[in-house]
Amino acid sequence: MYPDSYLVSTEGKCRGVFTEIPKQYHSLLVRNYEGCLIIPGLSDLHVHAPQFSYRALGMDRELLAWLNRYTFPEEAKFSSSSYADEAYGYFVDALRRSATTRACIFGTVHRKTVEMLMDKLDQTGLFALVGKVNMDREVREDLLEKNSAEETETWLKRTMGKYKTVKPILTPRFVPTCSDGLLEKLGELQRAYQVPVQSHLSENPDEIELVHRLCPWSDFYGDVYDHFGLFGGEVKTVMAHCVYSTDAEVERIKERGVFVAHCPQSNTNIASGIAPIRKYLRKGIYVGLGSDVAGGAHLSIFRAMTDAIQVSKLYWRLLDPEAAPLSAAEAFYLGTAGGGAFFGKVGRFEEGYDFDAVILSDQRLPHPHQLSIEERLERLIYLSDDRDIRAKYVCGREIEL
Amino acid sequence: MYPDSYLVSTEGKCRGVFTEIPKQYHSLLVRNYEGCLIIPGLSDLHVHAPQFSYRALGMDRELLAWLNRYTFPEEAKFSSSSYADEAYGYFVDALRRSATTRACIFGTVHRKTVEMLMDKLDQTGLFALVGKVNMDREVREDLLEKNSAEETETWLKRTMGKYKTVKPILTPRFVPTCSDGLLEKLGELQRAYQVPVQSHLSENPDEIELVHRLCPWSDFYGDVYDHFGLFGGEVKTVMAHCVYSTDAEVERIKERGVFVAHCPQSNTNIASGIAPIRKYLRKGIYVGLGSDVAGGAHLSIFRAMTDAIQVSKLYWRLLDPEAAPLSAAEAFYLGTAGGGAFFGKVGRFEEGYDFDAVILSDQRLPHPHQLSIEERLERLIYLSDDRDIRAKYVCGREIEL
Repeated sequence: MYPDSYLVSTEGKCRGVFTEIPKQYHSLLVRNYEGCLIIPGLSDLHVHAPQFSYRALGMDRELLAWLNRYTFPEEAKFSSSSYADEAYGYFVDALRRSATTRACIFGTVHRKTVEMLMDKLDQTGLFALVGKVNMDREVREDLLEKNSAEETETWLKRTMGKYKTVKPILTPRFVPTCSDGLLEKLGELQRAYQVPVQSHLSENPDEIELVHRLCPWSDFYGDVYDHFGLFGGEVKTVMAHCVYSTDAEVERIKERGVFVAHCPQSNTNIASGIAPIRKYLRKGIYVGLGSDVAGGAHLSIFRAMTDAIQVSKLYWRLLDPEAAPLSAAEAFYLGTAGGGAFFGKVGRFEEGYDFDAVILSDQRLPHPHQLSIEERLERLIYLSDDRDIRAKYVCGREIEL
Repeated sequence: MYPDSYLVSTEGKCRGVFTEIPKQYHSLLVRNYEGCLIIPGLSDLHVHAPQFSYRALGMDRELLAWLNRYTFPEEAKFSSSSYADEAYGYFVDALRRSATTRACIFGTVHRKTVEMLMDKLDQTGLFALVGKVNMDREVREDLLEKNSAEETETWLKRTMGKYKTVKPILTPRFVPTCSDGLLEKLGELQRAYQVPVQSHLSENPDEIELVHRLCPWSDFYGDVYDHFGLFGGEVKTVMAHCVYSTDAEVERIKERGVFVAHCPQSNTNIASGIAPIRKYLRKGIYVGLGSDVAGGAHLSIFRAMTDAIQVSKLYWRLLDPEAAPLSAAEAFYLGTAGGGAFFGKVGRFEEGYDFDAVILSDQRLPHPHQLSIEERLERLIYLSDDRDIRAKYVCGREIEL
């Protein structure tokens, strides 16, 4: 925490925080955010763009029933360009106005409208890894892909290198909807195109049971992805949830350097449970936060921070008195540096890190106290919304709010 | 749910909902809230006004340590009129701008500044039951009252009948800080002045242990209040929390018609646990919602609704598969009619009920769907904030937002 300081950026990179502007930067433009807090941009490691429009609706089912009842019917609509244009417009608009600077985003199986989503994101300047979803089993007819891998290769060729801060990420939805044959091909595509991977892991007991039934040859759920070369190691991988990962799965996550996207609100809303984040942090596993809209109803990673703190307190109280609740500082870490690490040198104001920053004002939240910067930040984490964001930068470039 | 209808109010009372304006009301002024949703006002059955300014700070302790570390030092400041003027100003302002129309409010032990709070609330037109807190043991010196009952009687005499929609409510803080002698006198005051009662009950394991130690003669925590005539029956009583009420306590709550103020966010933030609300509803116990600022960080009863749904899902998943999670409709009921019943005929748009209403717009939350009124309401419960409130009425009178 640096009071009354200068944060310097050149060429999209952070050059450090100084009490006086170093001589070599005297020619730089100075922007004055007096009275505001400047924080690293927030990273959302797991969010479903097509689900944004029905967030805060239909959270009265568990995962598998919820997917069939709400998610898949909605995602089927994204075969329509005009529907996708409107719905993705709302999503991208909200993401732009939020404190999120980077995100790992699921689209749908539809290549063309996923490209539309990528175009829209590119126009904002936000940094996004976007996935065309793969599904070739256990899903309604109109979402079932016959040429999933081929379409994915076409999409990779069309989008790799096309944008400045938007890139493709391989996105097998989850094991239940991806046959071994499809995962095999996706593994080959990964090795051919060197793209990162995102998926879901051990979110719900019935889902895990289904995976065991579909892949009886696997040691555990994550072992399926790993078998096809889609689980860390050389492959930058983020897995959402990990609520019920077994010891063996946790060991593999750690060993392979897989990122866990902790999505506390989603795990609550669709009654999955509480992920043992204290355990993961103690083991040195990489953890970031995900809004998981629309399992989560809120796109805000500040909200994800407070949700993470809150469920960690219930976990401590109800399940494990040895698992100390997350502090506000730890939750802030998860939403900035923790998740940011998935994108490289991101989420800290250190020399050489990408310059992603959010400028926050707490003027709308008056109080009679003398507060430290830490306390002002804690209040903003719990109480701020998009009204309180004064400016936002990604790779040194200001984002229009 | 009534689409495109007229909600009629005269003399501060609701006269029903009609598809056409009945003849006898043709002369009434018509206000057009086309496109908006009109809902009954929300009731906050438990909130601490002096804690508002430090909400979203210092939630890293359990109840008793939290009170000593954060709450009591802050409440001590309310001996100062100038401090109270500023801090209560922020609270009343936020309550006015929220969707809450009625509240049961704790002040501090300081009679004069509690009267200042009541004056401020009176100016808004909100309906409020406000308590001068009683404490004569187990608290730091500067909050320890020597003439707690006498001061309370002075306060009752000065405030009863003084305001139109603001009234005093007896407020022994909780058993740990109220000696048997003090509770005895408060029971006498209750019978002499016929005022309602609010307090805390069975929130935290250590607190309950402390009550057993301080009142070894009692059968259970709530039995202490009951022994002194401060626990329902003839006495309108609301008890916050009831997270750990024993079967005997639950039976007494039911038998005496005591209201439970369910404060899910507070119970999470200070790691108390999850109250078994499904059980209370099945037993026919009166339940409403409380923000419990500053155990809760948010004054919004919409937020309390979603918190209630969310913790009920974790309760179902982690503690009791027989306890079905709360639906959005049930949570909405708790925040309107459920809590409203504490104030009389409040919280419904039925003939003869007090006309408390909130007009909400969902224009700020665009989406590509055709939604039912129920779905639009569910979205507003999860996603709305004070920006979305178009107007608010209490007893037929419009509140300045």
